[in-house]
Amino acid sequence: MTINRGIGGIAGQIAAELRHAVRTGRLTPGTRLPATRDLAADLRVSRGVVVEAYEQLVAEGFLVSRVGSGTHVAPAAAPRAEPPPGDREHAPYYGHRPTSPDLGLFPRERWLAALRHVLATAPGDALDYGDPGGVPELREELAGYLSRVRAADVRPDHVVVTGGVAQGLSLVLRVLAEPGRLRLAVEDPGSDRQLPLLRRAGADPVPVPVDEEGLDVAALAASRADAVLVTPAHQFPTGVVLSPARRAALMAWARDGDRIVLEDDYDAEFRFDREPVGCLQGLAPDRVVLSGSVSKSLAPGLRLGWVVAPARLAAAVRRARGELDLGSPVIEQYALAHFLRTGGYDKHLRRMRREYRVRRDALVEALARDLPEVRVRGIEAGLHVYLELPEGWDAERLVAAARELGLVAAPVSRTRGAGGPPAVVAGFARLPARRAAETVRGLNVLMSGHFRK
Amino acid sequence: MTINRGIGGIAGQIAAELRHAVRTGRLTPGTRLPATRDLAADLRVSRGVVVEAYEQLVAEGFLVSRVGSGTHVAPAAAPRAEPPPGDREHAPYYGHRPTSPDLGLFPRERWLAALRHVLATAPGDALDYGDPGGVPELREELAGYLSRVRAADVRPDHVVVTGGVAQGLSLVLRVLAEPGRLRLAVEDPGSDRQLPLLRRAGADPVPVPVDEEGLDVAALAASRADAVLVTPAHQFPTGVVLSPARRAALMAWARDGDRIVLEDDYDAEFRFDREPVGCLQGLAPDRVVLSGSVSKSLAPGLRLGWVVAPARLAAAVRRARGELDLGSPVIEQYALAHFLRTGGYDKHLRRMRREYRVRRDALVEALARDLPEVRVRGIEAGLHVYLELPEGWDAERLVAAARELGLVAAPVSRTRGAGGPPAVVAGFARLPARRAAETVRGLNVLMSGHFRK
Repeated sequence: MTINRGIGGIAGQIAAELRHAVRTGRLTPGTRLPATRDLAADLRVSRGVVVEAYEQLVAEGFLVSRVGSGTHVAPAAAPRAEPPPGDREHAPYYGHRPTSPDLGLFPRERWLAALRHVLATAPGDALDYGDPGGVPELREELAGYLSRVRAADVRPDHVVVTGGVAQGLSLVLRVLAEPGRLRLAVEDPGSDRQLPLLRRAGADPVPVPVDEEGLDVAALAASRADAVLVTPAHQFPTGVVLSPARRAALMAWARDGDRIVLEDDYDAEFRFDREPVGCLQGLAPDRVVLSGSVSKSLAPGLRLGWVVAPARLAAAVRRARGELDLGSPVIEQYALAHFLRTGGYDKHLRRMRREYRVRRDALVEALARDLPEVRVRGIEAGLHVYLELPEGWDAERLVAAARELGLVAAPVSRTRGAGGPPAVVAGFARLPARRAAETVRGLNVLMSGHFRK
Repeated sequence: MTINRGIGGIAGQIAAELRHAVRTGRLTPGTRLPATRDLAADLRVSRGVVVEAYEQLVAEGFLVSRVGSGTHVAPAAAPRAEPPPGDREHAPYYGHRPTSPDLGLFPRERWLAALRHVLATAPGDALDYGDPGGVPELREELAGYLSRVRAADVRPDHVVVTGGVAQGLSLVLRVLAEPGRLRLAVEDPGSDRQLPLLRRAGADPVPVPVDEEGLDVAALAASRADAVLVTPAHQFPTGVVLSPARRAALMAWARDGDRIVLEDDYDAEFRFDREPVGCLQGLAPDRVVLSGSVSKSLAPGLRLGWVVAPARLAAAVRRARGELDLGSPVIEQYALAHFLRTGGYDKHLRRMRREYRVRRDALVEALARDLPEVRVRGIEAGLHVYLELPEGWDAERLVAAARELGLVAAPVSRTRGAGGPPAVVAGFARLPARRAAETVRGLNVLMSGHFRK
């Protein structure tokens, strides 16, 4: 045993050495330890230090001590099984989705300035346990922002701050699914990635087809679902914007059957060619739950979003949040409130919209020129395009080729496996405009040969 | 309708005015709108602007337009019910718990420096969707810290970063309670506040008494529980440290019955008079799930904590997190990793420990001098003391009096209503040492009279 007099408490070091010896099996259960006097002499430390170390390990349960029989390694103190070599988990990478923003454009300086402002001005109590529904300042700013930009019909007490759209859905579904399970219609094609979350939250997903106008509301009515999850501003993955007729039919379906529409206001910030359509929630605030986040507008890693729900449901969601994790971290909530209040958020969005529009145009042009067989859809909004491939093309191969060239893509699978041509989604947010042409030419080359008609 | 040419798009303003008129019932369903040409002339704007506004509202579903019959307010566009006056929710204050730290001592400068470091150095991908189990850098630092300071037996892949102890418990219980419910022993007295969380996560709490040595393990064995939730380092609320014999008995109970011990390592950072006892997890890493957080050491508002679990359970908890909310915000995870790596966390803890010790000593001394009838317990660690009151004293009244004097206290209720003297917990973290004497003298005065023997 080696003692380093420079570092920390000597008793603590002796305890740590002995603990390690017990754990690794070097000291086996029942082994008698040297008398404190002897060990102290060996180590040239005072006896009190050894007594302290032994007492520590007795208190922890590694050693037992009985009057008149000395100190022994405890019977239950079995060595731990060392993990087999190579047992360390492989760390997968969770990012680089076709819908992810360009994180190189995250406004680091301005976000830091917002954090600095918060830490310089927030009272101490602001760092205490807070309202599980979110800090009041942020709920107020979000209510104003969503009313102004998304034509939502919202008061601050209808807003619950969440850790993103995923958590918002989890919470709302858990509340709606009490006490049984919820029959939840989902778009087909849709976000397969969400299905495990929906099921865990108590929902049984029922796929309903999406066509050129968006969700097929007649099929929805036939599905006997209690609620539906939709992406009306820019359907994932097809990019279709829900048509006015379908919006009306969807609202009628909800009202007539006292049903709930879960509106994922995914990609609504990025409508390029005209004003974005207002959210469904603004039409029927008593029937629609609106979810959104800053994952596309700022960064997914912030895990910051919101739910807007009718008052009673909002109160239940907030209670559920209080009984799950006591709410979101507060400093970044205050920072986002500050960013919204001072116009930094709007300014950042305007800048991003301009930049992404240029990137979208470059990709769409290059596709039209160099991959004319591919039908490009859903370009009005969002950070990805939907590519319908000719029959016989291999979507998986196109995805691999695209990723190799720096274009993040993912294959589209129909939930029900119903027909339709093979398709992929491709995200243009991370593809600089100047690289679009060479990327698509590269795709053309890689996709030539027998994978192509 | 007034148009402000200085602000935003004119079409957007017209749309917003009309939307508002429909919502408030000023324009009722079926009402025909003026022809675009007429409204444009009235407002002195170009006709295209009015067309754009109408189209926007048709797209949103507020208006309907049919060829040859003009534009009408949509049939379903009912006005929203305005909230009755005074319906705004009263915002309760969630903080000021007896166990809360002094947030005036939060290291704002150093935390901001850590945030600045992260924003200056983290690659863009660090802000993308991340591992739902937490960023690898933080899991590594926490594994090192918990091994070193809490004698835990932990590898980084056993660590799951959480939004605090509450969320850690929620996640672990949900996994353990699949598919049925979990019979979970809890300490009595214990944290009543946690009970709704435990029930919502699928556990049925079974109270087991706590005595002078901590949890009564014989009673635990008789309870037929599948798992137990304990606070061994400093029991809440009594402040008892679990005795060595009980630690051994508890570990034997867990091993013999293949049961799980949930260790809430509450207050472990603040052991004042000697080295803190190592955590239970270090004794039986295959049977114990350790939860902790920075809520006491830094601030509850950070919502940052951890779970250390056996490999298989850790993987399941991480998966559950991925299917709940995709993980904790990343910037503050990186900041905490930096704070741990550079020694800032240890330094802050040492400073806090010194300061809280002084405050504890001042309160305990003042109580001994001016309220000698009160028995003070659980002073070895943590941020609160447990006060046993003489029979006949009114705990609620003492709590109210203490809060009036700036000492945050809460009454203790036995889950089973079993006997014992009336008691309260009082937090000394926010009571400066120089104010302890006058506070206790004030309590003495306020508690005099018929509430006192």
